[in-house]
Amino acid sequence: MTTPLAAKIAREYGTPCAVIDMDRVERNIARIQKACDDAGVANRPHIKTHKNPTIARMQVAAGAKGITCQKLGEAEIMANAGIDDILISYNLLGEEKMARLGALQAKANMTVAADNSTVVAGLPKAAAASGRPLSVVVECDTGRKRAGVETPAEAIALAREIAASKGLEFAGFMLYPTETGWAEAQKFYDEALAGVRAHGLDAKIVSTGGTPNLVNLGKLKGGTEHRFGTYIYNDRMQVAAGSATWDDCALHIYSTVVSRAAPERGILDAGSKTLTSDTGGLDGHGLILEHPEAKIAKFAEEHGFLDLSRSNTRPNVGDVVRIVPNHVCVVVNMMDEVVMVRGEEIIGTLPVAARGKLR
Amino acid sequence: MTTPLAAKIAREYGTPCAVIDMDRVERNIARIQKACDDAGVANRPHIKTHKNPTIARMQVAAGAKGITCQKLGEAEIMANAGIDDILISYNLLGEEKMARLGALQAKANMTVAADNSTVVAGLPKAAAASGRPLSVVVECDTGRKRAGVETPAEAIALAREIAASKGLEFAGFMLYPTETGWAEAQKFYDEALAGVRAHGLDAKIVSTGGTPNLVNLGKLKGGTEHRFGTYIYNDRMQVAAGSATWDDCALHIYSTVVSRAAPERGILDAGSKTLTSDTGGLDGHGLILEHPEAKIAKFAEEHGFLDLSRSNTRPNVGDVVRIVPNHVCVVVNMMDEVVMVRGEEIIGTLPVAARGKLR
Repeated sequence: MTTPLAAKIAREYGTPCAVIDMDRVERNIARIQKACDDAGVANRPHIKTHKNPTIARMQVAAGAKGITCQKLGEAEIMANAGIDDILISYNLLGEEKMARLGALQAKANMTVAADNSTVVAGLPKAAAASGRPLSVVVECDTGRKRAGVETPAEAIALAREIAASKGLEFAGFMLYPTETGWAEAQKFYDEALAGVRAHGLDAKIVSTGGTPNLVNLGKLKGGTEHRFGTYIYNDRMQVAAGSATWDDCALHIYSTVVSRAAPERGILDAGSKTLTSDTGGLDGHGLILEHPEAKIAKFAEEHGFLDLSRSNTRPNVGDVVRIVPNHVCVVVNMMDEVVMVRGEEIIGTLPVAARGKLR
Repeated sequence: MTTPLAAKIAREYGTPCAVIDMDRVERNIARIQKACDDAGVANRPHIKTHKNPTIARMQVAAGAKGITCQKLGEAEIMANAGIDDILISYNLLGEEKMARLGALQAKANMTVAADNSTVVAGLPKAAAASGRPLSVVVECDTGRKRAGVETPAEAIALAREIAASKGLEFAGFMLYPTETGWAEAQKFYDEALAGVRAHGLDAKIVSTGGTPNLVNLGKLKGGTEHRFGTYIYNDRMQVAAGSATWDDCALHIYSTVVSRAAPERGILDAGSKTLTSDTGGLDGHGLILEHPEAKIAKFAEEHGFLDLSRSNTRPNVGDVVRIVPNHVCVVVNMMDEVVMVRGEEIIGTLPVAARGKLR
């Protein structure tokens, strides 16, 4: 079964094709802004999911304080589009990056994260190039074992290093608590805050993150803002985490069934170069709306292997199906543009402008 | 430890950055061309790995008969660059694709694969648009359970359908034998060939595929050409498969260590948006040349999680390391360009021109 819209998408753009429903996008923006407003926490959406300045401006117009980027190249595109308050939630290092950060800070209000002295030692060059102070938050590891200092004592020491560095301003703390780790995050933050206060510093920005942490929004006493990313489109992981419903999933991959060599299997024209090998910890690689019992069992680069053994209705060769991906952030990153629709109407395309900005 | 070249790459381009050594690329091209010549099999390299017309032309100049593409968008870029003999090893379906295939066939000699009647029924439109016959090979499944007809009888029936279709020419068979399945492939092919001959048809093209099948090259009696893809750069999977050595790995990802929050772990600035979540069935996500005992244990989108527990020497924050990826084809597909070097000298950049051509 191919819906009329799917047939139209296939005819006009071909498949595989990413399609976003702008009604849902707008609803997601409004829903999360309201959640932030209700919780008394500023909204600083992470653009890693959409990578598009038009959507970033919609988020800001709806009330977001600023945005979050992970890479300098993303921030450059957003600053060029007029976004003025940007947090790069990442350790930036090296001459090449310091020159670019300096140029950025000359035209937008930048804040960057740091979790070690080597990073802090490099940042004054960027500040000097921009001619004005650069805000730096200390990234704290509150359970993910990713980046971030591991103890409040290290956080305090790094905050003091930042404050003592020419051209840098200690701006606060950045945390990314696990969904069950907010009590530990509170303890870490309270201790770090008391420590910096004892040295005459204070935290203007206390930033938490993660769309699955929607249920915890506002829980951190002293938290000032939250970084939501995936909520703009949502995906199978967010539905599994309880932070979105299937109706909140604004992006679908339209894919054609190109082979049905045996009754219990089929091949989609979307493989790991479209949907990626990122399972997000889930079984199968996406939900096919027309065949929810079908399993996207594995991928070759351009082939999606369909296991139809549990499906009562099975697609035919030529059918165009709609897939909710497991992890939408990495899927959007595979393509140069997405097609915008409202309900059944095609509106046009939106470039994934910050895609491929590895650095 | 950062090599002088790595320091230069970081300074000039920043990290993460894909770097290809053109000496190795040329050596790989020569090595596989010689293997094909020695085996008496034509070389039809798959451009999915490099996605670049300059390298495709180097492959043809070295003796390749033509190239293989998986997507129309890739073939369009290669045809525009003057490549004249292109196999699209994929079932193409739908009006939009038939119009593009027709336009392509008007300017280059195209061959396409088909494994079912629906695909065959669509192709005459493309042939008609081009004004000349279109070659079609029957894709045969010889063990991968991907695309391909499952029996010689189906292959024969489909070949006859092709031959009876206006504007289409039955050109032969396309197989992708598993590394241990060449005897079965031979049996399948022999039976299919005898069948089509009984109906007055013949197979001009008998195409096998896969870089790991280097050891089997020439084994299929009647085989006319082979599709090598990954050999152009090679990767950890090819080394594991025995089809390449570490010295044949022409592409390295240069990545900076951005965090070392604890003695036994670290963070690279290359995550799943650079190296992808495709493990290729291997443990860990790449070999770090400077720290071969280190394990890239997992990814966030922009973070590579380093497990250093088995490493005697451990990198410092700011070190730039070189990584041989597990599966280079999907890694190249993440970026818009790669940097070319010869030994220690930077030559320039090469666009990944056919990247993101999902359709």
